[in-house]
Amino acid sequence: MWLELDRGADPGRVQRELSALGLWVTRCSGPQGIGFWVQKHSAHLEPEALQIEGVRAVFPQASPHPRVDALAGLTFRAGPLSIGGEAPVALCAGPCSVESRGQIEEAAAAVAEAGGRALRGGAYKPRTSPHAFQGHGARALGWMRDAADRHGLAMITEAVSEAEVPRVAEFADVIQVGARSMQSYGLLRAIGEAGKPVLLKRGLAAQLEEWLLAAEHLLVAGSGPIAFCERGVRSFDPSTRNLLDVGVVALLASVYRLPVLADPSHAAGRRDLVVALGRAGLAAGAHGLLVEFHPDPASALSDGPQALDRAGLLALGQSCGTTLEVA
Amino acid sequence: MWLELDRGADPGRVQRELSALGLWVTRCSGPQGIGFWVQKHSAHLEPEALQIEGVRAVFPQASPHPRVDALAGLTFRAGPLSIGGEAPVALCAGPCSVESRGQIEEAAAAVAEAGGRALRGGAYKPRTSPHAFQGHGARALGWMRDAADRHGLAMITEAVSEAEVPRVAEFADVIQVGARSMQSYGLLRAIGEAGKPVLLKRGLAAQLEEWLLAAEHLLVAGSGPIAFCERGVRSFDPSTRNLLDVGVVALLASVYRLPVLADPSHAAGRRDLVVALGRAGLAAGAHGLLVEFHPDPASALSDGPQALDRAGLLALGQSCGTTLEVA
Amino acid sequence: MWLELDRGADPGRVQRELSALGLWVTRCSGPQGIGFWVQKHSAHLEPEALQIEGVRAVFPQASPHPRVDALAGLTFRAGPLSIGGEAPVALCAGPCSVESRGQIEEAAAAVAEAGGRALRGGAYKPRTSPHAFQGHGARALGWMRDAADRHGLAMITEAVSEAEVPRVAEFADVIQVGARSMQSYGLLRAIGEAGKPVLLKRGLAAQLEEWLLAAEHLLVAGSGPIAFCERGVRSFDPSTRNLLDVGVVALLASVYRLPVLADPSHAAGRRDLVVALGRAGLAAGAHGLLVEFHPDPASALSDGPQALDRAGLLALGQSCGTTLEVA
Amino acid sequence: MWLELDRGADPGRVQRELSALGLWVTRCSGPQGIGFWVQKHSAHLEPEALQIEGVRAVFPQASPHPRVDALAGLTFRAGPLSIGGEAPVALCAGPCSVESRGQIEEAAAAVAEAGGRALRGGAYKPRTSPHAFQGHGARALGWMRDAADRHGLAMITEAVSEAEVPRVAEFADVIQVGARSMQSYGLLRAIGEAGKPVLLKRGLAAQLEEWLLAAEHLLVAGSGPIAFCERGVRSFDPSTRNLLDVGVVALLASVYRLPVLADPSHAAGRRDLVVALGRAGLAAGAHGLLVEFHPDPASALSDGPQALDRAGLLALGQSCGTTLEVA
Repeated sequence: MWLELDRGADPGRVQRELSALGLWVTRCSGPQGIGFWVQKHSAHLEPEALQIEGVRAVFPQASPHPRVDALAGLTFRAGPLSIGGEAPVALCAGPCSVESRGQIEEAAAAVAEAGGRALRGGAYKPRTSPHAFQGHGARALGWMRDAADRHGLAMITEAVSEAEVPRVAEFADVIQVGARSMQSYGLLRAIGEAGKPVLLKRGLAAQLEEWLLAAEHLLVAGSGPIAFCERGVRSFDPSTRNLLDVGVVALLASVYRLPVLADPSHAAGRRDLVVALGRAGLAAGAHGLLVEFHPDPASALSDGPQALDRAGLLALGQSCGTTLEVA
Repeated sequence: MWLELDRGADPGRVQRELSALGLWVTRCSGPQGIGFWVQKHSAHLEPEALQIEGVRAVFPQASPHPRVDALAGLTFRAGPLSIGGEAPVALCAGPCSVESRGQIEEAAAAVAEAGGRALRGGAYKPRTSPHAFQGHGARALGWMRDAADRHGLAMITEAVSEAEVPRVAEFADVIQVGARSMQSYGLLRAIGEAGKPVLLKRGLAAQLEEWLLAAEHLLVAGSGPIAFCERGVRSFDPSTRNLLDVGVVALLASVYRLPVLADPSHAAGRRDLVVALGRAGLAAGAHGLLVEFHPDPASALSDGPQALDRAGLLALGQSCGTTLEVA
Repeated sequence: MWLELDRGADPGRVQRELSALGLWVTRCSGPQGIGFWVQKHSAHLEPEALQIEGVRAVFPQASPHPRVDALAGLTFRAGPLSIGGEAPVALCAGPCSVESRGQIEEAAAAVAEAGGRALRGGAYKPRTSPHAFQGHGARALGWMRDAADRHGLAMITEAVSEAEVPRVAEFADVIQVGARSMQSYGLLRAIGEAGKPVLLKRGLAAQLEEWLLAAEHLLVAGSGPIAFCERGVRSFDPSTRNLLDVGVVALLASVYRLPVLADPSHAAGRRDLVVALGRAGLAAGAHGLLVEFHPDPASALSDGPQALDRAGLLALGQSCGTTLEVA
Repeated sequence: MWLELDRGADPGRVQRELSALGLWVTRCSGPQGIGFWVQKHSAHLEPEALQIEGVRAVFPQASPHPRVDALAGLTFRAGPLSIGGEAPVALCAGPCSVESRGQIEEAAAAVAEAGGRALRGGAYKPRTSPHAFQGHGARALGWMRDAADRHGLAMITEAVSEAEVPRVAEFADVIQVGARSMQSYGLLRAIGEAGKPVLLKRGLAAQLEEWLLAAEHLLVAGSGPIAFCERGVRSFDPSTRNLLDVGVVALLASVYRLPVLADPSHAAGRRDLVVALGRAGLAAGAHGLLVEFHPDPASALSDGPQALDRAGLLALGQSCGTTLEVA
């Protein structure tokens, strides 16, 4: 957004007023006058709020994602799962991979017991190595659907390939777009065309605007409502697996008013920090959590170090409820 | 840490057990056997915890910062300010720059009213541009000391130059090391030699280990106790000014058991996100907050867009108290 | 890789010898002895090279990408295009988008005149915004094939969607995987199954190992040979569009001995730096360049600011030839 | 820079013309008209160059570092060392630490033999750990001065502490500001006040504008001429120690026309990549190289894995000369 000053205005005074409104500005001046460019990390204000003395014109930037903006303030709903608005904290949990009918049934029971509203789990797994376990595919979808239904949970699972989308759409309540596919536009189109609610994870180094534009791709293709999920971005510090960006969680929740989950499991990469980071995500404004949970982490085929066990999940469930009440 | 397996051990089983303990490992094998290297973002376990079946030897790494480690579990104390241990949430607030005797007096009154324990403010300012306001220097120290005393607050201020250290040490309860000086070892030595408590901000792209080693530098030089302050790291996303790393906050608080503050003002860069990020920092385990507050943000000489006003500070004070009770 | 010392060995002496070999190590010690973990940014040495006095055992790590490793030293060939080995510098150029039959014909003529061996251009465009031009799709493939054939060039184009892969494979000599799809495993599988040579761009924040594993995914699925393309990674500095990582170019070329191109256009983001960064990529060891060129940048539908015009392309072609001779 | 359009202008046409000039723009529009904000990674053009049809006003941004800008096009000179302008490639080399009179004498002889113009080495060492070797201090300055003089070299050494500055200034031709001190303003002031030529290394995560402003701090304090040195920035990829930013090298050399060196040793972190990265830096436009060299890397007290030995240094010297001739 660009603000242009009246000829006689005192630029120092105007800048301090803008600063008081939460705006960082870059000052430019030429033969035709003086103006300020509002930097991106400033507070978001409507042009009307800036008609202060000394400002003669405001040039706002049109949003590049009008369809996403239209979701502001709406509650995301998919079966028994609601995210945002007046809905209580949404706990979505389950194993990294669906490993057997028994495992996912046991997982669903624990998720329900912990107060969760959705069962998550991977039937098709995006694995960094092609030599690692890639998931049980289609039959895991059936196991998961049964387990979710038996315990009154919504089912969330990722589609890794366009070819899988129809099958995933048939079984799942919510199709997940993984972090590594956030800008894979062919896959976004296929998922959008399925017309289902979508959980859109943030790419490992995606800027907020790129993330919102990925959602716009889904909506243009015909998707149902979209919930965002921050799962930690790539950083220069090897101390944690990823870096949970509570700033964008706060922006999405309080400025864009879009439904957003935090995924403390991938961010922390280790079980003992999951509750702390989950609570941090909620405190920043997240409407719920997406966490990895395994009935028996010692037998997990993937991501075991970050999976909560049953006791951990129950503790997290209690913690989430508590946090919500004081929020 | 390196773990070496017994000749006959099943590496898959051992790896799953380690995974259940929260360890990510890299497997190596040679003619002399098989072993696992424990990756840095794993849970921190004592070697004794790893004497599981099939592991014949554990090679731990000695800590490079023994003096910092010796502070684990201790409460940081400096005058009326306590951070960590059983101490209540420590709210430290004040203006970016000490601009006048009146301004800092007004600020101190508000900080005390909000339940704060320390007054922060810059007498000497590290400014990216040499043409920007550099602070009122020595006389601001006196104004600040008076204001802090009048309201029963500890005084925290930054030393930017070695030459200023004795003067700052004479007035302040806590000497702040700024983010941009975190690895300026000459300054660290001078500050350490002053023998006072130190607030050590994290560098803009400092890894946790580098930050702990900066504290070790201070302690070796003779400093008093050290409190850490996470203020957001540099990121690739222009949506927020910096990126608050709640993961290292959680690590410092719950694994290293060191006193740590979060600075949501520099992380967010905008007033309207400060409370959300402050709460996120506390939820992750921070023992207190360092926030920018200005009695009249519209007249601030620096960092106005991120300074809370009086009403905002009082709201934050209440919010901190509330969060603490449920923690 | 882990190195274990003899009981009586002097760890300081061994460490200095390892250091002289280019190894950075982390020292660990326990009741069973002393050892060194070789850090990732060290020189790559075979275990045999480390049987120095005082080292009693070496535990190397198996490569997670054996099929990629098997390509070491081979020349990538696709029609008239050769990359790596004894091949001359491979110049691959063309417009961001194929906009018309006339435009791509004009482009192909200039590429051939500049000494280029391949025509690149987008028929299907991955665009950050769904409201931006998405490419002319299938018919652009035909225009491009004709133009490439007429001028003796190989044809390189990206497949954005699994559904497009068969059509792209029918026309192109080389299928490009875009940076934003580098870890979209469904798309990698579909492209791999087409059995064609692949140009694999590096993801915006992909670590080298992840990039090599993406290539392994392609090879496991059945792809032809793979050439890598570094196009600049995401950075914290807005001064350039991306940050060209000449370090991984050097690693790929001289340590992994894999065919690698540098893309100075996306790295620089501006025409006037393309030649300097292209030369830097070649100096680091790249076997060729992938550059954006438009016969009339003022009419480009996308990425105009970074497209070379005809004169710029000819100058680059000369510059590449010259650089090669002295390398 | 902000460009405002005439009422009747076609914004699409203007945007394409700007794009052809190398500008990336953000479009804004309001009741008072339409305008474009020029993004930072665009080509740098004078306002006059933008008086194209349809643009009614240009609002440029004043440079925040006028004293640095005034150095544009000048050659940096300090004793026998010249950097930039018409000067030949400047090779500056020497050990990480000055370890003994003999070592630095041997180093100086080799540097001179390789065609170097300056001897670099650390008398005072900024070490991440306070328990590591900190340098021999004042007496190393004398050893180094003697060695430099004997071989006709300029002497470059770092001042880590304000207290050391007068002593360093007495001996050295060029005072080095280390990467970790780039924004330590007290130290910058002290170094500036010494009035000597300065070699200013880039901070680990410093944006180009911050780096230029650090130079402005030095100049305001009274420093002599300044040469910049890019030594690799912090990255998310552990494959190399740091990431050499050839983009800012190109910007400094060709757009800002300021003297700039590349330091391939710290960027690569390993001996076998130093020549490749050094050549890449020169190809991007660097006026010289700063490299670590040790007569006997196996006895180096610090940074051994990245130090060239004598043969490596001679090879680099030849390579630099060759590259220059074709540039």
